[in-house]
Amino acid sequence: MADPQPARRPGGRTARVRGAVHRAVTELLAEKAPDEVTIAAVAERSGVHQATLYRRWGTMTGLVEDVVAEVLNRGSPIPDTGSLRGDLSAFAVNAAAGLASPMGTVYLRAIALGVGPAEGAPDGGHPGFDARAQQLQEMLDRATARGEPVPTLPDLLEVVLAPMYFRALLLKQPPDEEQAHAVVDRLLALTRG
Amino acid sequence: MADPQPARRPGGRTARVRGAVHRAVTELLAEKAPDEVTIAAVAERSGVHQATLYRRWGTMTGLVEDVVAEVLNRGSPIPDTGSLRGDLSAFAVNAAAGLASPMGTVYLRAIALGVGPAEGAPDGGHPGFDARAQQLQEMLDRATARGEPVPTLPDLLEVVLAPMYFRALLLKQPPDEEQAHAVVDRLLALTRG
Repeated sequence: MADPQPARRPGGRTARVRGAVHRAVTELLAEKAPDEVTIAAVAERSGVHQATLYRRWGTMTGLVEDVVAEVLNRGSPIPDTGSLRGDLSAFAVNAAAGLASPMGTVYLRAIALGVGPAEGAPDGGHPGFDARAQQLQEMLDRATARGEPVPTLPDLLEVVLAPMYFRALLLKQPPDEEQAHAVVDRLLALTRG
Repeated sequence: MADPQPARRPGGRTARVRGAVHRAVTELLAEKAPDEVTIAAVAERSGVHQATLYRRWGTMTGLVEDVVAEVLNRGSPIPDTGSLRGDLSAFAVNAAAGLASPMGTVYLRAIALGVGPAEGAPDGGHPGFDARAQQLQEMLDRATARGEPVPTLPDLLEVVLAPMYFRALLLKQPPDEEQAHAVVDRLLALTRG
């Protein structure tokens, strides 16, 4: 969910409210069971009126989506190391570290709270995800320009990112560097045929 | 979280309470935003006292974990088709259909509500997941006995299951038969080297 008032100046009251509310959501998701993270709790923690929260974000789910979008958007830029293996490894190690961090737990909870037909956009993924996917496509385009064999973006997402999310969500083990390198090796093995 | 009183008879009061409570959790997760699915809401829907819910499951997270364990345990048996490709395809198509069903949405939300260090067992995955993993290992052992090249269980989980969960969670697109066959092809390509 994009900021509904993107034209306001970044240092203004709107941005300050958004910052305070995002901090409150992040802290609460880190501290409490998800069913305790309510609009009322966010209002109390952030000092922003409930009416303002409802008007701006509509529901707790809308608010969580906005936090997820921001986390995805502030992800590190994808490095240009000069080889596909180098770029993929740097990206995967960074993603593993992010998912394993306390913010990663918050992010995974937030992602999952947005699952389901009720609140999901009919054909959109998580907001913010598209921008990240665009950066990954540019990484692949650089490799194509160098003449390297290149996987598709869906293959990259499914072979490199998916196993790290799966491990964190289903096996409750944080992804690590070893897994990051293993999934990159797997993608390159598939790409070379 | 296993039933803390497994010795009671299956048709007894304990089983009836568990059934009513599980139904209530499932219905509420399908209907409401996750932050509205509270112990109080489950008590009201199921007709079981809040005190009983707290005594038996401790927290909403514990209760959701128990529901997840039951969903995983009642998953269809893994078929014995006589070939690894046949077994994997049947398993993957079934898993895709399960994740794409309304219960799949509930299951994914429940999985994610259990994410995080606070409630997670220090080194255990989701309860119920181990039993499913054991069935998959038996599928692989049958292929080994037939002399087929066989992937490891972690490879099977990461290459076949992980992309379907990722698609449902991150891209908000239900997995389908086409994806199920594609991930099986990918695993077999990796296995043959």
